[in-house]
Amino acid sequence: MKKTFRSGCPIASMLDIVGDKWSLLIIRDMLLAGKKTFKDFSSSIESIAPGILSSRLKMLESVELITKRKLPENNKENIYLLTEKGIELVPLITEMILWSDKHVRPLNTEMYDVSDKGFDRDKSKVMEYIQFNYRELVKGLVG
Amino acid sequence: MKKTFRSGCPIASMLDIVGDKWSLLIIRDMLLAGKKTFKDFSSSIESIAPGILSSRLKMLESVELITKRKLPENNKENIYLLTEKGIELVPLITEMILWSDKHVRPLNTEMYDVSDKGFDRDKSKVMEYIQFNYRELVKGLVG
Repeated sequence: MKKTFRSGCPIASMLDIVGDKWSLLIIRDMLLAGKKTFKDFSSSIESIAPGILSSRLKMLESVELITKRKLPENNKENIYLLTEKGIELVPLITEMILWSDKHVRPLNTEMYDVSDKGFDRDKSKVMEYIQFNYRELVKGLVG
Repeated sequence: MKKTFRSGCPIASMLDIVGDKWSLLIIRDMLLAGKKTFKDFSSSIESIAPGILSSRLKMLESVELITKRKLPENNKENIYLLTEKGIELVPLITEMILWSDKHVRPLNTEMYDVSDKGFDRDKSKVMEYIQFNYRELVKGLVG
C-alpha cells in the first residue's frame, strides 16, 4: 500500500499511519498482552469490529510495523508479530499511559490502576523490560 | 461534552480523546508554532477543513486541554491556549517526532529535517524548553 502523507511534518506523518482509534490498541495488545492472532485481537475489551481489525492489520503490515507469519505446527492460522519498528513504539505508548493516568483518569472513573507498573519510579527500565519481553516472545515463536 | 470511554485502559482512553488525525496537529501548532486563532490553525499546511477544526476545538475545550479566551485589546476574536494538561503532552509529541523521524522518514521523502532540534542530544532539555516557551507565551498574552 502506498501511503499518502499530508505534509512533511513528522507528527502529521506518524498520525497518517497510526492516527486512528484502533491501530495503537492492536499494538498495545501485542506488546503488553502478547496477543498474536486475529481471534486474540477480536477478544479485547474494546470490541473491535472484524472489518476494522482486518483493514488495520493489513495497513500495519504494509508499513512494516507488523509481519504476518505462520507457526510451523499450525499452517492454518496467521500470527501477527511486531517488527523492531513496531517494538520501538514503546516509549510513545509509555508517554500515552503516563499522560492518560494523570490527566484522563478524572474523566474516566473506570480507568485501571497502573501505579504498580513502576513507570513513576523508573520509566526507562520498565520500557526496556517490555521490549525485552516482546523480543523474547518473538524468538520463542519463530526463532 | 460527556466523554464515553471504550474501556478502563489508559491508552484507549487517551485515544478516545485525541486519537484522530487532527487534534494533535492543532496542539502541535500551539506548542511549536505559537498559533492561537481559528485563522492560524486554518492556515496550516495540512489544510484542516473549517468544520473539523471547529469540532476539534470544541472537543479539546470540553476536556480542558485548551481554553478559549479573548484578548483585552480585541474582543471580537477568540484565542485558544493550551492548559497545563495540554502543555504536558510535550513528552508524547516528542516521542512521536523521534519515532517518525526514524521510521516513517523512509516512507515520506518530503519529511522535514529535525536533526537540528537537538532531540537526539538532550531530549529532556528540548522538551523543557518547548514547555517553558509556551508558558511564557501564555503569560505574555493573558498574564
